[in-house]
Amino acid sequence: MFEKTIKTTYYYKGRMINMRDDEVELDNGKVSRREIVEHPGAVIIVALTENKELVFIKQFRKPVEKVIFEIPAGLVNKGEELETAAKRELKEETGYVAAKIQKSISAYTTPGYSTEIIHYYIATDLKKELQSFDEDEQIEAELLDLKTAWKKVSSGEIMDNKTIVGMVLAEKFLQGES
Amino acid sequence: MFEKTIKTTYYYKGRMINMRDDEVELDNGKVSRREIVEHPGAVIIVALTENKELVFIKQFRKPVEKVIFEIPAGLVNKGEELETAAKRELKEETGYVAAKIQKSISAYTTPGYSTEIIHYYIATDLKKELQSFDEDEQIEAELLDLKTAWKKVSSGEIMDNKTIVGMVLAEKFLQGES
Repeated sequence: MFEKTIKTTYYYKGRMINMRDDEVELDNGKVSRREIVEHPGAVIIVALTENKELVFIKQFRKPVEKVIFEIPAGLVNKGEELETAAKRELKEETGYVAAKIQKSISAYTTPGYSTEIIHYYIATDLKKELQSFDEDEQIEAELLDLKTAWKKVSSGEIMDNKTIVGMVLAEKFLQGES
Repeated sequence: MFEKTIKTTYYYKGRMINMRDDEVELDNGKVSRREIVEHPGAVIIVALTENKELVFIKQFRKPVEKVIFEIPAGLVNKGEELETAAKRELKEETGYVAAKIQKSISAYTTPGYSTEIIHYYIATDLKKELQSFDEDEQIEAELLDLKTAWKKVSSGEIMDNKTIVGMVLAEKFLQGES
Protein backbone atom coordinates (compact mmCIF):
# COMPACT_ATOMS: atom_id res chain seq x y z
CA MET A 1 0.00 0.00 0.00
CA PHE A 2 1.54 3.28 -1.13
CA GLU A 3 0.60 6.56 -2.78
CA LYS A 4 3.15 8.12 -5.08
CA THR A 5 3.16 11.93 -5.29
CA ILE A 6 2.62 13.14 -8.86
CA LYS A 7 2.26 16.86 -8.10
CA THR A 8 2.22 19.10 -5.03
CA THR A 9 0.52 22.51 -4.87
CA TYR A 10 0.93 24.81 -1.87
CA TYR A 11 -2.01 27.10 -1.01
CA TYR A 12 -0.75 28.56 2.26
CA LYS A 13 2.57 28.87 4.05
CA GLY A 14 1.98 30.28 7.50
CA ARG A 15 3.47 30.87 10.91
CA MET A 16 2.64 27.40 12.30
CA ILE A 17 1.03 25.43 9.49
CA ASN A 18 1.24 25.05 5.72
CA MET A 19 -1.53 23.76 3.47
CA ARG A 20 -0.89 21.73 0.33
CA ASP A 21 -2.81 19.55 -2.09
CA ASP A 22 -1.07 16.44 -3.42
CA GLU A 23 -2.03 14.57 -6.56
CA VAL A 24 -1.20 10.91 -5.89
CA GLU A 25 -1.10 7.62 -7.77
CA LEU A 26 -2.42 4.58 -5.92
CA ASP A 27 -1.16 0.98 -6.23
CA ASN A 28 -4.10 0.24 -8.54
CA GLY A 29 -3.00 3.03 -10.90
CA LYS A 30 -5.91 5.27 -9.95
CA VAL A 31 -5.13 8.97 -9.45
CA SER A 32 -6.53 10.84 -6.46
CA ARG A 33 -5.90 14.00 -4.43
CA ARG A 34 -4.99 14.50 -0.77
CA GLU A 35 -5.43 17.75 1.15
CA ILE A 36 -2.58 17.98 3.64
CA VAL A 37 -1.84 20.32 6.55
CA GLU A 38 1.86 20.46 7.41
CA HIS A 39 2.44 20.86 11.15
CA PRO A 40 5.83 21.04 12.92
CA GLY A 41 4.87 18.58 15.71
CA ALA A 42 4.33 19.15 19.41
CA VAL A 43 5.10 17.96 22.91
CA ILE A 44 2.35 17.02 25.36
CA ILE A 45 2.98 16.95 29.09
CA VAL A 46 1.33 14.48 31.46
CA ALA A 47 2.26 16.15 34.76
CA LEU A 48 1.48 14.25 37.97
CA THR A 49 1.66 15.73 41.46
CA GLU A 50 2.68 13.82 44.61
CA ASN A 51 -1.05 13.36 45.34
CA LYS A 52 -1.51 11.63 41.96
CA GLU A 53 -3.37 14.58 40.54
CA LEU A 54 -2.98 15.49 36.88
CA VAL A 55 -2.23 19.08 35.83
CA PHE A 56 -4.88 20.41 33.44
CA ILE A 57 -5.19 23.78 31.78
CA LYS A 58 -8.19 25.73 30.63
CA GLN A 59 -7.93 28.01 27.66
CA PHE A 60 -10.05 29.54 24.94
CA ARG A 61 -9.51 27.75 21.64
CA LYS A 62 -10.53 29.89 18.67
CA PRO A 63 -11.11 27.01 16.19
CA VAL A 64 -13.83 25.55 18.45
CA GLU A 65 -14.90 28.93 19.98
CA LYS A 66 -14.82 27.52 23.51
CA VAL A 67 -12.84 27.40 26.74
CA ILE A 68 -11.76 23.76 27.03
CA PHE A 69 -9.90 21.47 29.43
CA GLU A 70 -6.63 20.16 28.06
CA ILE A 71 -3.27 19.00 29.33
CA PRO A 72 -0.29 21.27 28.61
CA ALA A 73 1.16 21.10 25.12
CA GLY A 74 3.21 23.22 22.79
CA LEU A 75 5.34 23.51 19.72
CA VAL A 76 9.03 22.68 19.73
CA ASN A 77 11.38 25.60 18.99
CA LYS A 78 13.85 25.22 16.11
CA GLY A 79 16.81 23.15 17.30
CA GLU A 80 15.27 22.53 20.72
CA GLU A 81 15.38 19.03 22.28
CA LEU A 82 11.89 17.53 22.73
CA GLU A 83 12.45 17.00 26.46
CA THR A 84 13.59 20.61 26.93
CA ALA A 85 10.50 21.79 25.06
CA ALA A 86 8.27 19.64 27.29
CA LYS A 87 9.78 21.11 30.46
CA ARG A 88 9.59 24.64 29.07
CA GLU A 89 5.94 24.35 28.02
CA LEU A 90 4.92 22.86 31.34
CA LYS A 91 6.58 25.74 33.20
CA GLU A 92 5.18 28.41 30.87
CA GLU A 93 1.59 27.17 30.86
CA THR A 94 1.18 25.92 34.43
CA GLY A 95 4.08 27.26 36.52
CA TYR A 96 5.11 23.71 37.44
CA VAL A 97 8.78 22.74 37.24
CA ALA A 98 9.41 19.00 36.88
CA ALA A 99 12.50 17.44 38.49
CA LYS A 100 11.80 14.20 36.61
CA ILE A 101 10.59 13.85 33.06
CA GLN A 102 10.44 10.76 30.84
CA LYS A 103 9.38 10.08 27.28
CA SER A 104 6.19 8.10 26.75
CA ILE A 105 4.59 7.33 23.37
CA SER A 106 4.36 9.42 20.19
CA ALA A 107 1.13 9.56 18.19
CA TYR A 108 -0.53 11.19 15.19
CA THR A 109 -3.44 13.53 15.92
CA THR A 110 -5.17 13.43 12.53
CA PRO A 111 -3.23 11.29 10.02
CA GLY A 112 -6.04 11.67 7.47
CA TYR A 113 -5.14 15.28 6.71
CA SER A 114 -2.28 16.48 8.93
CA THR A 115 1.38 15.55 9.32
CA GLU A 116 1.24 16.41 13.04
CA ILE A 117 2.97 14.03 15.41
CA ILE A 118 2.87 14.61 19.16
CA HIS A 119 5.31 13.35 21.75
CA TYR A 120 4.01 12.55 25.24
CA TYR A 121 6.17 13.17 28.30
CA ILE A 122 5.43 12.10 31.88
CA ALA A 123 6.53 14.79 34.34
CA THR A 124 6.80 14.11 38.08
CA ASP A 125 8.45 15.60 41.20
CA LEU A 126 6.72 18.89 40.52
CA LYS A 127 7.40 22.23 42.18
CA LYS A 128 5.09 25.18 41.66
CA GLU A 129 6.59 28.45 40.42
CA LEU A 130 5.06 31.28 38.41
CA GLN A 131 3.44 30.83 35.00
CA SER A 132 5.14 32.69 32.19
CA PHE A 133 3.03 32.11 29.12
CA ASP A 134 3.22 34.08 25.89
CA GLU A 135 1.50 37.46 25.84
CA ASP A 136 -1.17 36.14 23.49
CA GLU A 137 -2.09 33.16 25.66
CA GLN A 138 -4.65 33.23 28.49
CA ILE A 139 -4.34 30.04 30.51
CA GLU A 140 -5.59 28.75 33.87
CA ALA A 141 -4.06 25.66 35.51
CA GLU A 142 -6.21 23.19 37.48
CA LEU A 143 -5.46 19.92 39.28
CA LEU A 144 -7.81 16.94 38.98
CA ASP A 145 -7.50 13.39 40.22
CA LEU A 146 -8.00 10.77 37.50
CA LYS A 147 -11.36 9.56 38.79
CA THR A 148 -12.79 13.08 38.57
CA ALA A 149 -11.19 13.55 35.17
CA TRP A 150 -12.76 10.34 33.74
CA LYS A 151 -16.16 11.58 34.98
CA LYS A 152 -15.54 14.80 33.06
CA VAL A 153 -14.83 12.73 29.93
CA SER A 154 -18.17 10.89 30.34
CA SER A 155 -20.06 14.14 31.00
CA GLY A 156 -18.48 15.92 28.03
CA GLU A 157 -16.58 18.49 30.11
CA ILE A 158 -13.27 17.05 28.86
CA MET A 159 -13.47 16.52 25.12
CA ASP A 160 -9.93 16.67 23.77
CA ASN A 161 -8.35 13.54 22.28
CA LYS A 162 -4.74 14.22 23.36
CA THR A 163 -5.96 14.91 26.91
CA ILE A 164 -7.83 11.59 27.06
CA VAL A 165 -4.75 9.75 25.74
CA GLY A 166 -2.65 11.60 28.35
CA MET A 167 -5.01 10.38 31.08
CA VAL A 168 -4.55 6.78 29.91
CA LEU A 169 -0.77 7.22 30.00
CA ALA A 170 -1.01 8.73 33.51
CA GLU A 171 -3.09 5.78 34.66
CA LYS A 172 -0.66 3.23 33.20
CA PHE A 173 2.30 5.10 34.69
CA LEU A 174 0.72 5.08 38.17
CA GLN A 175 -0.16 1.38 37.83
CA GLY A 176 3.45 0.64 36.92
CA GLU A 177 4.67 2.56 39.98
CA SER A 178 2.38 0.93 42.53
CA MET B 1 -11.67 34.11 28.38
CA PHE B 2 -12.68 34.91 24.82
CA GLU B 3 -11.16 35.96 21.51
CA LYS B 4 -13.20 38.29 19.34
CA THR B 5 -12.73 37.96 15.58
CA ILE B 6 -11.59 41.23 13.99
CA LYS B 7 -10.91 39.92 10.49
CA THR B 8 -11.02 36.56 8.67
CA THR B 9 -8.98 35.74 5.57
CA TYR B 10 -9.51 32.51 3.63
CA TYR B 11 -6.48 31.00 1.88
CA TYR B 12 -7.97 27.73 0.70
CA LYS B 13 -11.44 26.29 0.19
CA GLY B 14 -11.14 22.65 -0.68
CA ARG B 15 -12.99 19.37 -1.02
CA MET B 16 -12.77 18.40 2.65
CA ILE B 17 -11.03 21.26 4.46
CA ASN B 18 -10.78 25.04 4.32
CA MET B 19 -7.91 27.11 5.66
CA ARG B 20 -8.37 30.57 7.17
CA ASP B 21 -6.38 33.04 9.27
CA ASP B 22 -8.29 35.00 11.94
CA GLU B 23 -7.15 38.24 13.49
CA VAL B 24 -8.48 38.20 17.07
CA GLU B 25 -8.70 40.52 20.06
CA LEU B 26 -8.00 38.98 23.46
CA ASP B 27 -9.59 39.95 26.80
CA ASN B 28 -6.48 41.99 27.61
CA GLY B 29 -6.92 44.04 24.42
CA LYS B 30 -3.95 42.43 22.71
CA VAL B 31 -4.37 41.51 19.05
CA SER B 32 -3.16 38.14 17.77
CA ARG B 33 -3.67 35.79 14.83
CA ARG B 34 -4.99 32.22 14.69
CA GLU B 35 -4.45 29.81 11.80
CA ILE B 36 -7.55 27.66 11.50
CA VAL B 37 -8.40 24.55 9.48
CA GLU B 38 -12.13 24.10 8.97
CA HIS B 39 -13.14 20.44 8.97
CA PRO B 40 -16.69 19.06 8.57
CA GLY B 41 -16.40 16.55 11.47
CA ALA B 42 -16.29 12.79 11.45
CA VAL B 43 -17.65 9.59 12.96
CA ILE B 44 -15.37 7.00 14.56
CA ILE B 45 -16.48 3.41 15.02
CA VAL B 46 -15.44 1.25 17.96
CA ALA B 47 -16.60 -2.12 16.63
CA LEU B 48 -16.47 -5.10 18.99
CA THR B 49 -16.92 -8.72 17.96
CA GLU B 50 -18.56 -11.44 20.09
CA ASN B 51 -15.04 -12.51 21.15
CA LYS B 52 -14.34 -8.99 22.46
CA GLU B 53 -11.98 -8.22 19.63
CA LEU B 54 -11.79 -4.71 18.23
CA VAL B 55 -11.98 -4.12 14.46
CA PHE B 56 -8.91 -2.25 13.19
CA ILE B 57 -8.00 -1.13 9.71
CA LYS B 58 -4.68 -0.62 8.05
CA GLN B 59 -4.29 2.01 5.39
CA PHE B 60 -1.67 4.23 3.82
CA ARG B 61 -1.97 7.80 5.07
CA LYS B 62 -0.35 10.28 2.74
CA PRO B 63 0.25 13.06 5.35
CA VAL B 64 2.45 10.74 7.41
CA GLU B 65 3.69 8.63 4.43
CA LYS B 66 3.00 5.37 6.24
CA VAL B 67 0.59 2.45 6.50
CA ILE B 68 -0.91 2.78 9.98
CA PHE B 69 -3.32 0.97 12.30
CA GLU B 70 -6.53 2.88 12.98
CA ILE B 71 -10.11 2.18 13.85
CA PRO B 72 -12.70 2.88 11.14
CA ALA B 73 -13.70 6.52 10.67
CA GLY B 74 -15.17 8.73 8.03
CA LEU B 75 -16.84 11.97 7.08
CA VAL B 76 -20.56 12.49 7.41
CA ASN B 77 -22.43 13.09 4.14
CA LYS B 78 -24.54 16.25 3.83
CA GLY B 79 -27.84 15.73 5.63
CA GLU B 80 -26.83 12.27 6.87
CA GLU B 81 -27.55 11.25 10.48
CA LEU B 82 -24.35 10.60 12.49
CA GLU B 83 -25.45 7.07 13.40
CA THR B 84 -26.22 6.25 9.77
CA ALA B 85 -22.79 7.55 8.78
CA ALA B 86 -21.13 5.41 11.46
CA LYS B 87 -22.88 2.25 10.21
CA ARG B 88 -22.11 3.11 6.59
CA GLU B 89 -18.40 3.77 7.21
CA LEU B 90 -18.00 0.58 9.24
CA LYS B 91 -19.55 -1.45 6.43
CA GLU B 92 -17.56 0.29 3.68
CA GLU B 93 -14.18 0.07 5.37
CA THR B 94 -14.38 -3.32 7.11
CA GLY B 95 -17.34 -5.23 5.69
CA TYR B 96 -18.90 -5.52 9.16
CA VAL B 97 -22.59 -4.76 9.61
CA ALA B 98 -23.60 -3.81 13.16
CA ALA B 99 -27.01 -4.84 14.49
CA LYS B 100 -26.46 -2.59 17.54
CA ILE B 101 -24.84 0.81 17.58
CA GLN B 102 -24.77 3.42 20.35
CA LYS B 103 -23.33 6.91 20.72
CA SER B 104 -20.35 7.33 23.00
CA ILE B 105 -18.41 10.59 23.55
CA SER B 106 -17.53 13.38 21.12
CA ALA B 107 -14.08 14.97 21.15
CA TYR B 108 -11.86 17.49 19.39
CA THR B 109 -8.84 16.11 17.56
CA THR B 110 -6.69 19.28 17.44
CA PRO B 111 -8.51 22.25 18.98
CA GLY B 112 -5.37 24.39 18.65
CA TYR B 113 -5.74 24.74 14.88
CA SER B 114 -8.71 22.70 13.61
CA THR B 115 -12.47 22.86 14.09
CA GLU B 116 -12.73 19.08 13.74
CA ILE B 117 -15.02 17.27 16.17
CA ILE B 118 -15.33 13.50 16.06
CA HIS B 119 -18.22 11.40 17.32
CA TYR B 120 -17.48 7.94 18.71
CA TYR B 121 -19.94 5.08 18.22
CA ILE B 122 -19.80 1.64 19.82
CA ALA B 123 -20.91 -1.03 17.35
CA THR B 124 -21.74 -4.59 18.45
CA ASP B 125 -23.59 -7.69 17.17
CA LEU B 126 -21.42 -7.67 14.07
CA LYS B 127 -21.95 -9.70 10.91
CA LYS B 128 -19.25 -9.87 8.23
CA GLU B 129 -20.20 -8.94 4.68
CA LEU B 130 -18.09 -7.55 1.85
CA GLN B 131 -16.11 -4.34 2.07
CA SER B 132 -17.22 -1.62 -0.35
CA PHE B 133 -14.78 1.22 0.13
CA ASP B 134 -14.35 4.15 -2.23
CA GLU B 135 -12.28 3.54 -5.37
CA ASP B 136 -9.47 5.73 -4.02
CA GLU B 137 -9.18 3.91 -0.68
CA GLN B 138 -7.01 0.82 -0.07
CA ILE B 139 -7.94 -0.68 3.27
CA GLU B 140 -7.31 -3.95 5.13
CA ALA B 141 -9.37 -4.95 8.18
CA GLU B 142 -7.82 -6.79 11.13
CA LEU B 143 -9.15 -8.00 14.48
CA LEU B 144 -7.14 -7.54 17.68
CA ASP B 145 -8.02 -8.21 21.30
CA LEU B 146 -7.46 -5.22 23.59
CA LYS B 147 -4.47 -6.70 25.38
CA THR B 148 -2.62 -7.16 22.09
CA ALA B 149 -3.70 -3.69 20.98
CA TRP B 150 -2.33 -2.03 24.16
CA LYS B 151 0.98 -3.79 23.55
CA LYS B 152 1.00 -2.30 20.06
CA VAL B 153 0.49 1.15 21.59
CA SER B 154 3.50 0.64 23.88
CA SER B 155 5.63 -0.68 21.03
CA GLY B 156 4.69 2.17 18.70
CA GLU B 157 2.83 -0.03 16.18
CA ILE B 158 -0.42 1.77 17.02
CA MET B 159 0.20 5.51 17.08
CA ASP B 160 -3.09 7.20 16.30
CA ASN B 161 -4.81 9.30 18.98
CA LYS B 162 -8.42 8.55 17.98
CA THR B 163 -7.62 4.83 17.92
CA ILE B 164 -6.17 4.93 21.45
CA VAL B 165 -9.25 6.85 22.68
CA GLY B 166 -11.44 4.27 20.92
CA MET B 167 -9.60 1.48 22.78
CA VAL B 168 -10.32 3.20 26.11
CA LEU B 169 -14.01 3.48 25.19
CA ALA B 170 -14.07 -0.21 24.19
CA GLU B 171 -12.50 -1.17 27.51
CA LYS B 172 -14.97 0.92 29.50
CA PHE B 173 -17.87 -0.48 27.48
CA LEU B 174 -16.79 -4.08 28.14
CA GLN B 175 -16.27 -3.34 31.86
CA GLY B 176 -19.81 -1.89 32.00
CA GLU B 177 -21.19 -5.02 30.35
CA SER B 178 -19.47 -7.56 32.58
